[in-house]
Amino acid sequence: MGEEARVSDMEENTTRSNHLVDELVVDLYPLSSYYFGSRDALPVKDEIVSDRVVRLKSNYAVHGLRTCVEAVLLVELFKHPHVLLLQYRNSIFKLPGGRLRPAESDIEGLERKLASKLSINENVGLEVGECIGMWWRPNFETLLYPFLPPNVNHPKECTKIFLVRPSLNQQFVVPKNYKLLAVPLCQIHDNEKTYGPIISQLPKLLSKFSFNMMEI
Amino acid sequence: MGEEARVSDMEENTTRSNHLVDELVVDLYPLSSYYFGSRDALPVKDEIVSDRVVRLKSNYAVHGLRTCVEAVLLVELFKHPHVLLLQYRNSIFKLPGGRLRPAESDIEGLERKLASKLSINENVGLEVGECIGMWWRPNFETLLYPFLPPNVNHPKECTKIFLVRPSLNQQFVVPKNYKLLAVPLCQIHDNEKTYGPIISQLPKLLSKFSFNMMEI
Ligand SMILES: [Zn+2]
Ligand SMILES: [Zn+2]
Ligand SMILES: [Zn+2]
Ligand SMILES: [Zn+2]
Repeated sequence: MGEEARVSDMEENTTRSNHLVDELVVDLYPLSSYYFGSRDALPVKDEIVSDRVVRLKSNYAVHGLRTCVEAVLLVELFKHPHVLLLQYRNSIFKLPGGRLRPAESDIEGLERKLASKLSINENVGLEVGECIGMWWRPNFETLLYPFLPPNVNHPKECTKIFLVRPSLNQQFVVPKNYKLLAVPLCQIHDNEKTYGPIISQLPKLLSKFSFNMMEI
Repeated sequence: MGEEARVSDMEENTTRSNHLVDELVVDLYPLSSYYFGSRDALPVKDEIVSDRVVRLKSNYAVHGLRTCVEAVLLVELFKHPHVLLLQYRNSIFKLPGGRLRPAESDIEGLERKLASKLSINENVGLEVGECIGMWWRPNFETLLYPFLPPNVNHPKECTKIFLVRPSLNQQFVVPKNYKLLAVPLCQIHDNEKTYGPIISQLPKLLSKFSFNMMEI
């Protein structure tokens, strides 16, 4: 009895440490191992900031806190990790993602958004991984914070960032009004002016991972 | 047979999602639930930057890449998460931690450093948790980066940040030449001038966690 208990404890420990190591290593496949296509333009909301604030306010009155989910998809190019970013009007960079519907789970919402924005079919083996960061908007017009500031009891928006491991040979079909770009972490790092407050901080959120450059 | 396989898949899925949720919630106990003591001063190395560079160079020649491990210990105060920081000479803030010995594992090194700096005994149930970030020093004098920059094949130093969950009623015994301070995330956030390049970025590395404020 005592012996049995000890053995199963050891198994639990081994499983746990393999498991943690496993999660901190990300296999990166070369950009050339994916397929990229093009399709009809996607309607875009919120082109003016004041429109966005008005829409956020009226939505908040009905549904409360808005949750957005966004995907970080990484590929290898020149032996360095690159993030896939959607570019709109040659200037605005976005991670693929969007708002959850009422009562929708993070994972279901992200799968729906990846299907609508990049035609990624959830059945091909795409792996939505761990949440790597969250950003809070305490008031309608304010800045984003990586924590809920003290005395903020009714935040207006929460954006959750997920690491998504695309399946090998994944096909990305990009709406004509967007470009899909592979941007190196070293270019994004602390470059808030070009990439905005969330994307420019991604290298830090990803820093705990070791990258395994796969040859194909 | 088919039915069995399906059930075990479902169990695997449930375990996996509980597990992920579990890791993203951190129980925070009030500062007042811990004990703080004082003891003799600890000798301090590297007081001048040029000394530090000289020591890093001579160490690199013998041992190669230096790895440092540092602990983030969180407590609750005024319903907001606070990080425990060591303050030296009323101005320099540090996370408890230090350099690994050759062939020492991250966890063993961090336990040794927590014992020497805060007299935390590893047998009382301290839980060294996940790595939440890594910072690289590509050259002896250069800045830190949250990734290995392209074309850097021989980085000089790597600092790994671990979330450490102190056991309930943990006693911290602080050397007389240091103060141990509980600093709120909102004060640390992006305040590189006061807290330096690593500590000022901790709120982002911690942003994926939800904090569960425990009443005692
Ligand atoms: Zn896992
Ligand atoms: Zn689904
Ligand atoms: Zn776990
Ligand atoms: Zn140990």
